[in-house]
Amino acid sequence: MTDCLFCKMVAGEIKPDVVYEDEQVFAFRDINPKAPTHILVIPKQHVATLNDLQDKGLAGHLLQTVAQIAATEGIAEVGYRTVINCNNEGGQEVYHLHLHLLGGRPMTWPAG
Amino acid sequence: MTDCLFCKMVAGEIKPDVVYEDEQVFAFRDINPKAPTHILVIPKQHVATLNDLQDKGLAGHLLQTVAQIAATEGIAEVGYRTVINCNNEGGQEVYHLHLHLLGGRPMTWPAG
Repeated sequence: MTDCLFCKMVAGEIKPDVVYEDEQVFAFRDINPKAPTHILVIPKQHVATLNDLQDKGLAGHLLQTVAQIAATEGIAEVGYRTVINCNNEGGQEVYHLHLHLLGGRPMTWPAG
Repeated sequence: MTDCLFCKMVAGEIKPDVVYEDEQVFAFRDINPKAPTHILVIPKQHVATLNDLQDKGLAGHLLQTVAQIAATEGIAEVGYRTVINCNNEGGQEVYHLHLHLLGGRPMTWPAG
């Protein structure tokens, strides 16, 4: 998608602070962090929202990548939160699916 | 796990308000809802936290089940939030992996 911010990051046209990348997924630090660790994990292919995630293997890989990065960041055992915002009432701002990994501080409840 | 609240629900010993069930996953309304729609989606097998979710197919199925239930609840298009709390700083209270589906109102940011 030529007009998608995250597709431009995957293509290298915009350079975020990348923390992980493989054939299917891409992860980088949120430019407006809400916790000491705030990373976004996205599929490289353009998928607009969680409703559009048809590939079960990719869905599983995205979720497992969050846990893997939490371990790399050293917050897996102390704890972290994973958040996916879908569409307007979910608070989705960029319409390229992304999983938020939030940690490095105690997260409060409810989650928004 | 005989001492696990959610395993007891899967086994039918405790009866929650079930909204979906198949061979792998189980979903029911949160007893202390934080939004008009607040549903928990869990694996039937005992998996303590997101860090322990080794089965990629199950991981994908859990995530896709959230989206499917959002559609059934009529909130897929207006929007919803999916949250997974892992360990203490993530705010995990029951140590049987669960995905929160929250919607029916605009969710605020940050997510806790």
